[in-house]
Amino acid sequence: MGTVLAHTDGAGLIDEVLTSFFARSKARAEAMHPEYLSLWQCLERTTAGGKRFRPRLVMTAHDLLGGSDRVAAATVAAAFELLHTALIVHDDVIDRDYTRRGAPNVAGTYRNRAAASGSSTERADHTGLSTAVIAGDLALSNAYRLLSEADVDPPTRQRLGDLLDEAIVASAAGELLDVLAPLDSTPQTVDEVLTMSKLKTAVYSFDAPLCAGAVLAGADQELVGALGEFGRTIGTAYQVADDLIAAFGDEALTGKTGWGDLREGKRTALISYAAGQSQWTRIAELMSRPDLTAQEATEIRELLAASGARDETLRLAADLTEQALDILVRPVIPQTLRDGLKPLSRLVTDRMGA
Amino acid sequence: MGTVLAHTDGAGLIDEVLTSFFARSKARAEAMHPEYLSLWQCLERTTAGGKRFRPRLVMTAHDLLGGSDRVAAATVAAAFELLHTALIVHDDVIDRDYTRRGAPNVAGTYRNRAAASGSSTERADHTGLSTAVIAGDLALSNAYRLLSEADVDPPTRQRLGDLLDEAIVASAAGELLDVLAPLDSTPQTVDEVLTMSKLKTAVYSFDAPLCAGAVLAGADQELVGALGEFGRTIGTAYQVADDLIAAFGDEALTGKTGWGDLREGKRTALISYAAGQSQWTRIAELMSRPDLTAQEATEIRELLAASGARDETLRLAADLTEQALDILVRPVIPQTLRDGLKPLSRLVTDRMGA
Repeated sequence: MGTVLAHTDGAGLIDEVLTSFFARSKARAEAMHPEYLSLWQCLERTTAGGKRFRPRLVMTAHDLLGGSDRVAAATVAAAFELLHTALIVHDDVIDRDYTRRGAPNVAGTYRNRAAASGSSTERADHTGLSTAVIAGDLALSNAYRLLSEADVDPPTRQRLGDLLDEAIVASAAGELLDVLAPLDSTPQTVDEVLTMSKLKTAVYSFDAPLCAGAVLAGADQELVGALGEFGRTIGTAYQVADDLIAAFGDEALTGKTGWGDLREGKRTALISYAAGQSQWTRIAELMSRPDLTAQEATEIRELLAASGARDETLRLAADLTEQALDILVRPVIPQTLRDGLKPLSRLVTDRMGA
Repeated sequence: MGTVLAHTDGAGLIDEVLTSFFARSKARAEAMHPEYLSLWQCLERTTAGGKRFRPRLVMTAHDLLGGSDRVAAATVAAAFELLHTALIVHDDVIDRDYTRRGAPNVAGTYRNRAAASGSSTERADHTGLSTAVIAGDLALSNAYRLLSEADVDPPTRQRLGDLLDEAIVASAAGELLDVLAPLDSTPQTVDEVLTMSKLKTAVYSFDAPLCAGAVLAGADQELVGALGEFGRTIGTAYQVADDLIAAFGDEALTGKTGWGDLREGKRTALISYAAGQSQWTRIAELMSRPDLTAQEATEIRELLAASGARDETLRLAADLTEQALDILVRPVIPQTLRDGLKPLSRLVTDRMGA
């Protein structure tokens, strides 16, 4: 995702804020207990691995709207990165994932440690997940702390606080819908899937960071509102395209198997489309198998294509991208920002292989 | 715990702040998704069941130090209650507890719902724990939000932010040590147990609320420092006494069996004392049994008494209480506050049956 925003490079400044934050946090943790330092190091590694996508959206909006306080912007940007860390660490707990990008995540690191100490598999798993609950709590609370360190006037502070609050409240709503979806025997509609994606990911990853950058640059409510709408729409398009990658992309490329989520009963737009078609019985039967062979995976893909679900999903992603670009041409959005944000649509089209 | 602080009653004001907070949060949640409203109602019930111990400490310190802004104090107090809610909800995830005070907690409520929808026991358990991770995140982030709503000057805001931050960072450290303790084959020393208790509970439950109330009343750093020290010490004494209740108290009174934690390999001061004695082999063997009979529980209690561990633990709780009361007589602490806080020691002595 990084290259899309390469022309406005706040990455150095964001890393400085995060490095300073973790240095302070690690020193305090070590003073409390040596064991605590390890957890903070683990959390720092989790944060270091990211592409800084959300913080760079903050910087992009701030810079292209003529904002003049890049230090405050980088502090707010870093807060959004910590929020992202918190959400992925807790999302991994919920998905019982022990790796991320091919390496042990927080839960995996402590699961391995418990296993090495002689814990049973079941105990080691739970030790890993418990530690990840704690680590996510630290990242989440420190997102609020970092935001409070931004040196801005009280009304700006209030608006930024509202945005961070909205982001976490929305992502928790989306995560809840995701967790509860498998309990519902009636298949989710495409609209329900889109609502879930928007709440779970688009608000905190696209909408809120763009709005925060604009608020830092002193933007009025109309501009902030339009940016938020653009962010939610392009972010939802991105998630739809991501479903396609999960199902049709190279597993080595995405770093995880695309079928795990589906097997857990989670719904995507792709699956919602397929669920209404004649191929669905066979697809569902294949997906329920715990150890899918390469041949069976290929069969699922062929059935998804034959059912028309793949094309419908591609069309949906393209439509949402177009809607997002339509928002971007509204007169309230200055030309420089429009030009700077337009490449974000490539995030979607690149994923669609277009 | 309530009656100890009954002479300074801020409970009504605290409840008003929390009721208003939940009304706003539920309205927003319902607008996002009807399902989300249920989770917020569940979170409100969790918060409603508490004794408001931490918020009342905030009010007590504020009022007895002559603070004049009870509305700001009640807002900060409510933030500490939300922090407490967040920590118990996530602690229940870590302990895999599905009930609290005899009723289903957040995890239990959603586990039951998943089971009723036909989920396997294992899937239903995980649905319950996942939902509780989300609910705890909401309570935690909103503790920061509520704090930011207190109408105070910037230096006071900064000091209050530092206190909330220190409270969550300490409790996460204590929780981590608690989670990792069973991995260590060498028994924890009493000092290690006390460090864990202090970090996990005493800082956020006693130290930080007292300090926050003092800061709201404009107290200087020396007074705040002494109050913090008093809070950590009396809070640690309280935890030691709590271990005794868990082992020797009436199960119906505490609402949960006292052996669950011990069976999970968690250490208490009581157990650390016993671990060095000749009775330990038999105690450990009995405790490891998954279904303890009433007769076996009685045998454990008798062995703990015979080993001297019970008396040592009683002495430790009494010593810590005395240390706390010694802090309270320092000249920096005004007489009214001294008189108001002294009854807190009854929290410990009452638990010791003294």
